[in-house]
Order: sequence, then structure tokens, then C-alpha cells
Amino acid sequence: VAKRLEKFKTTIFTQMSSLAIKHNAINLGQGFPNFDGPDFVKDAAIEAIKAGKNQYARGYGVPDLNSAIASRFQKDTGLIVDPEKEVTVTSGCTEAIAATILGLVNPGDEVVLFAPFYDSYEAVLSMAGANIKCITLRPPDFAVPLEQLKSVVSANTKAIMINTPHNPTGKMFTREELEFIAQLCKENDVLVFTDEVYDKLSFEMDHISMASLPGMFYRTVTLNSLGKTFSLTGWKIGWAVAPPHLTWGVRQAHSFLTFATSTPMQFAAATALQTSDSYYEELKRDYLAKKAILVEGLEAVGFVVYPSSGTYFVVVDHTPFGFENDVAFCEHLIEEVGVVAIPTSVFYLNPEEGKNLVRFTFCKDEATLRGAVERMKHKL
Amino acid sequence: VAKRLEKFKTTIFTQMSSLAIKHNAINLGQGFPNFDGPDFVKDAAIEAIKAGKNQYARGYGVPDLNSAIASRFQKDTGLIVDPEKEVTVTSGCTEAIAATILGLVNPGDEVVLFAPFYDSYEAVLSMAGANIKCITLRPPDFAVPLEQLKSVVSANTKAIMINTPHNPTGKMFTREELEFIAQLCKENDVLVFTDEVYDKLSFEMDHISMASLPGMFYRTVTLNSLGKTFSLTGWKIGWAVAPPHLTWGVRQAHSFLTFATSTPMQFAAATALQTSDSYYEELKRDYLAKKAILVEGLEAVGFVVYPSSGTYFVVVDHTPFGFENDVAFCEHLIEEVGVVAIPTSVFYLNPEEGKNLVRFTFCKDEATLRGAVERMKHKL
Ligand SMILES: CSCCC(=O)C(=O)O
Ligand SMILES: CSCCC(=O)C(=O)O
Repeated sequence: VAKRLEKFKTTIFTQMSSLAIKHNAINLGQGFPNFDGPDFVKDAAIEAIKAGKNQYARGYGVPDLNSAIASRFQKDTGLIVDPEKEVTVTSGCTEAIAATILGLVNPGDEVVLFAPFYDSYEAVLSMAGANIKCITLRPPDFAVPLEQLKSVVSANTKAIMINTPHNPTGKMFTREELEFIAQLCKENDVLVFTDEVYDKLSFEMDHISMASLPGMFYRTVTLNSLGKTFSLTGWKIGWAVAPPHLTWGVRQAHSFLTFATSTPMQFAAATALQTSDSYYEELKRDYLAKKAILVEGLEAVGFVVYPSSGTYFVVVDHTPFGFENDVAFCEHLIEEVGVVAIPTSVFYLNPEEGKNLVRFTFCKDEATLRGAVERMKHKL
Repeated sequence: VAKRLEKFKTTIFTQMSSLAIKHNAINLGQGFPNFDGPDFVKDAAIEAIKAGKNQYARGYGVPDLNSAIASRFQKDTGLIVDPEKEVTVTSGCTEAIAATILGLVNPGDEVVLFAPFYDSYEAVLSMAGANIKCITLRPPDFAVPLEQLKSVVSANTKAIMINTPHNPTGKMFTREELEFIAQLCKENDVLVFTDEVYDKLSFEMDHISMASLPGMFYRTVTLNSLGKTFSLTGWKIGWAVAPPHLTWGVRQAHSFLTFATSTPMQFAAATALQTSDSYYEELKRDYLAKKAILVEGLEAVGFVVYPSSGTYFVVVDHTPFGFENDVAFCEHLIEEVGVVAIPTSVFYLNPEEGKNLVRFTFCKDEATLRGAVERMKHKL
């Protein structure tokens, strides 16, 4: 294996999902719904396949999808973007992240990362030879330590990566935090790469896109995807919205990472994104009910539950149960209790920092959530 | 744009396919069929979507597809591989190439490439920081210059990349050439990355997989895909077969490039690969008829047509028509004749070497091929 990837293990999501199957455990680990996506989107995919839309798509996306993404971006941020020059369709947001970093970051460039972080960020920065400056967000509120951030940003900083709503903590970046980061970026000529795949799962406050802040569109790559919002995580349709000079880099890397994304699924994604706002409202209502079940259940079980404002995740402190660390706790939880959670130490540069925290997802039907809570109540 | 990608332009396939649309030209450029894939495969995708197979697949592939790939590999090469440890599903062969190179090649490693080559090879080697040693295959037969190859392979060589049947030339590596390369690899402890996406389109001789040569499986990554064989280029299902120690590197890169590939399309791909041999025989028969139409037509038009043994491409020398180079010829062909071909200079490290050659594809219905020939007969 190449040195750039030597330190990385099998992604935790793969490990935990296999263990779930092996131990017949209830899987509140990896973030995929155990219910299906909406019929109108599935039907659109079926129509596209039947209609023979089965050959190579244009590398940066089929025109219908680029337009649908641009329209949605405008609705969400108020910004008009050019679907032909500022939108790139990718094979999931994971590819959008890889294409952004490999397309724009040079070896030795400094990139600021907030821990905990989705594991691909660190791995791809390592592939790009970037120099990571890591800032830890700490419970209970996972607020950005503004002065510490300021102290690591300089003329050597190429980019700051943010993720709001934030996986795994459910933290949403506040307007104050985003404005502080924006100011730093403008003063030091720094880019922002912002992963907003959970934007439609914002519960306790309104989602704010970094690109919508004054003067920030020009230096921001906004990443998003279909999977979480439409409960179709397996379709792997993602995208990057960015001004032309940044889109150029993203597209160059994308051309050589995957070249293009599944054509019929792109047509279905275009249909999905044209849906009315009521779809998103209903989604949110459903998830709020699920969240209430899980959060109340975890509290009743005896966890310290940290407030989650968005995403379909919640992070808890497991120390009341007396395990050495998050991995030991999760092993016990799978093997003895029959429930899968994700240890958070893998989301940190320094795993020690995550040792008290584990993540649960509530993207499951209510019976499953209640079943998991029952198991924990009885066996933990 | 990151320095590693600065020298690369928009991929030629995107450029030419847009020009085809703009000039309403007959597109014999990018290699995608203008006919649809088989119904039984499309139906399998539709069934999978309807059956709710729409959430994240296992990162390295859904078990059914890993097994189907292993079975096909065994049929083709006689080698038994472990679907769980030696097969990785990717988002098209382009991603398999990227994952192989980024997962196994370190900065400064020497990698041998044969020009002309599919453009992503050079771009991804550049992303990996590899040191490219390029050997040119020259018309009329594009034979491997064995002594020259020997002179560039040393203990510093990490890998040799091959592509057989070969895009753009249609050359197939002979047993003698493959054995020579195998010997060099064993003597110098070198890997082989072999792109065999056109293996089922072998017309003039039998396809030989490098992995099937004695002692070579252990040091070979074999790359393939669904798209060419099943006329579904837009579905983007590819794979890498390699021994566990190499698979590990491929999977690590894959985890962070795309994580997983479209779930319903993987189930359909599994169905496709379980088809009987008669499917491949019919495919070959159809393509032989198409090839005859194009080759005879191009000769009648006045090109020097180089023999193509496999793939759905044929390379010609355009110099009888008096243009300065391949790009000028292709521009004239699109704008004045209404036919798209691919200039081959983009497939070389030194573009000068491709200046007499252009590539045509015959993956089009017979009327389209005849139409293109007619236009060239009248207007060239
Ligand atoms: C490939 S897993 C992607 C993110 C996610 O769903 C998770 O964090 O569980
Ligand atoms: C992305 S184009 C892939 C290869 C091919 O089809 C071509 O060479 O035309």
C-alpha cells in the first residue's frame, strides 16, 4: 500500500456494518436509512433506464441535473450560479471531497480541519500531501475555539474544511462562527471547502451556507449530495458548486477519478431536486419524531447525550458505564447488547480525544429505534 | 488548480462529444454505443431499485457482484480468486485505475507506460507523484519494442501499465510480448496494472490476461468493467482483481475516493456477468460486421487504416489529406464533413508522436457507420 494511505484502517463504517450482520445487532452505526427513498425518485430512475439513458454522461453532469442543482442552490442561498460552469456532478459527496482536495490542494499546503471529522477528509488530504492543522471541537456544544483557530490561520493556509450540520456531533456552525471564519479567509486569502450533505436535516436552527456570506462565494466549494435528503444513500450522486476558477480544479480531478457518474441515476436525481418544499418539511417532521425517540431513550438508559442540532446523528458520553474507551464500549455494545454504534476516536487526529464519545444514528424506523433502546435498557 | 493537474486539459472525450452536438456531426469519437444495453440487465437494475436495494453498498462491492466477478475471472483465466479478499468493485474502470495507482504507487516511484495511452493513466500517475517512463508503440503493428522496454525497467520500477486490447490502436499484446514483460517483472520485482475492459472485444486473436501467466497473479492488478461488454457505458461499474496484499492498497484508496458504488447497478451487473457465453459470441459477431463496414469505408475514403485486433476502435493515418496534424484534421472533419474522430496526440507524452493518427470508433449502428463513411467520401 502507498505510504500516503499506510496509517488508515478499513473505514469504520465498513467494519461496523459487517459486525452488525455478524452479531445480528441493531445497526445504529453507519448512516443509512432502513426505509426506502420516495417512489417518484425511484420511478424516475426506472424511466431513465427504460428510455435508454444508459451511456456515458457528460463528465461534469447531465444538463438536467446541473440545472436542478443550480436551482436548488439558488433557493437555498439566494445566489445565482451557472449550471454549466459552476456545478460538477460526482459519484457521491465522498468523490466531491476527493476531487476538491486533489484538484485544488498542493503538497505542503496547510489545510485546517475541525475534529471530529468524517474520515475521508484526513485520508484525502494525506493523498494530496497537505499539511493538516487540526482544531478540536469539544463537548458539550462543540463550539469553534475562535482564538485558537485564528492562531493557526496564516498566509500559508490554503483552505479551511467545514461540515455543517456536522457529522458526527450534530453541531451546526452558528452565524457568528461562520462570519469569524469568513473574515479570517478574506484576510489571509484562504478557501473554504464546506460539506453540507445534512443541510436539509437542520432541526434546532436554520442551516447557513458559507457561500451565502458576503464575498465568500468566490472562495468557497460547497459540497452536497442526494443520499441523505432522499434516503437513497446507495445511489452515490454528489456535487460541488464553486466559482469557475475553483470548479476547473474540481473537474480536472473528477475527470481522472471517475470521469462521469451513473447516467440514469443523474436523471432521477434531477427529478428529485425539483420536488416541492413540502417534501423537505415532511422529512424533517419524520426525523424529529425519530430523534425524540432515540434521545429520550439514550437519556433513560443513562448516557450523557450532547445536543444535536442537525444531521441524523447524536453523540453521547458512555463513561457512566465504566468502559476504558469508545472502542471497548462499542465492542461490548455489539457483542453483549446487540446494538451497533460508531466509536468516535476514528474521527480525530488524536484518537484519545474521542475516547469518551460514541455516535448513534436515528435514520431508522421507529420500531428499530425503540428496539435498540430496549436492548440497552435491559442489557447495559 | 493543483500543480499535479495543471498540464492536463479538459479530457478530449468531453471536448469532442460537445463539438459533435454543436455541429450536429456523426460521433465516431468517444467510445459509447448508440444502441442500448440488453433488456435482461436493465430489468435487473429496475428490479433492484423496486426491491429497495438503494442504500450504501458494502465498500468493496455487494457480495453477489464480487462473486460474479470472481466466477467470470475464473472462466477467463483459469484462476480461482477469493471474492471477499481479491475483488474490489469501483465506480467504473476509471476509478479502478485511480484507486490502483493512488493506492499502490508512491511519489518518485517509476511506472512504465506504453504510448498511446488512455489519458487518465498519465493524469493519475501525476496525482500520485510517479515518475513516468514512456515507451512508444509505433504503427503499423504497434509492437512492443522489447529491448527498449528492457532498458527502462530496473529495481527502481514499481509497475508496468498495460492495456490489452489497446485503446486507441486496437493492438492486442501477444503471448510473446506478455511473457517478455512477465519475465522482466519477475526479475526486477515489478507490478503489472492491466486494463482489460475490451477483453470481450477480441477479434483477430484470443485475449490473454497477464494474471494468467505463470507466477504473475501475485504481482498483477487486473482492471475491467461492465460498460463496454454490455453496452452500458453510463452505468459506471468497474472492478479490480488482485491478490490480497495489492487489493488492500486498492481498497484503501477506493474507500476515500468514492467509498462505494451504486447499489442497484451492482446487482444488475451481477446478473449481467452470470450470462451465458452465447451473449459474448453474439456481441462479437455484431461488432465484426460493424468493423468491416467502417474499415472498408475508411479504406475507400483513402485513409491508411492500421489493423485493429480488438476494442471497438481503429486508428488511421490521415496524412493523405494534407492536414498539418491530427487536431487540424479532426477540426476540419467536424466542421466541414460532419464527422467526429479523436485526435491521438492527447494519448502521448510527446504529442508530436500522434500527429499523423486519428481514432474512429465502430460502436454505432450500421446506418450511422455507413452515413459517416458517405459524408467522408463526398466531403473529404
Ligand atoms: C460512507 S459512510 C458516509 C457517512 C455516513 O453515512 C456515516 O458517517 O455513517
Ligand atoms: C471516458 S471515455 C472512456 C474510454 C472511451 O470510451 C474512449 O476512449 O472513447
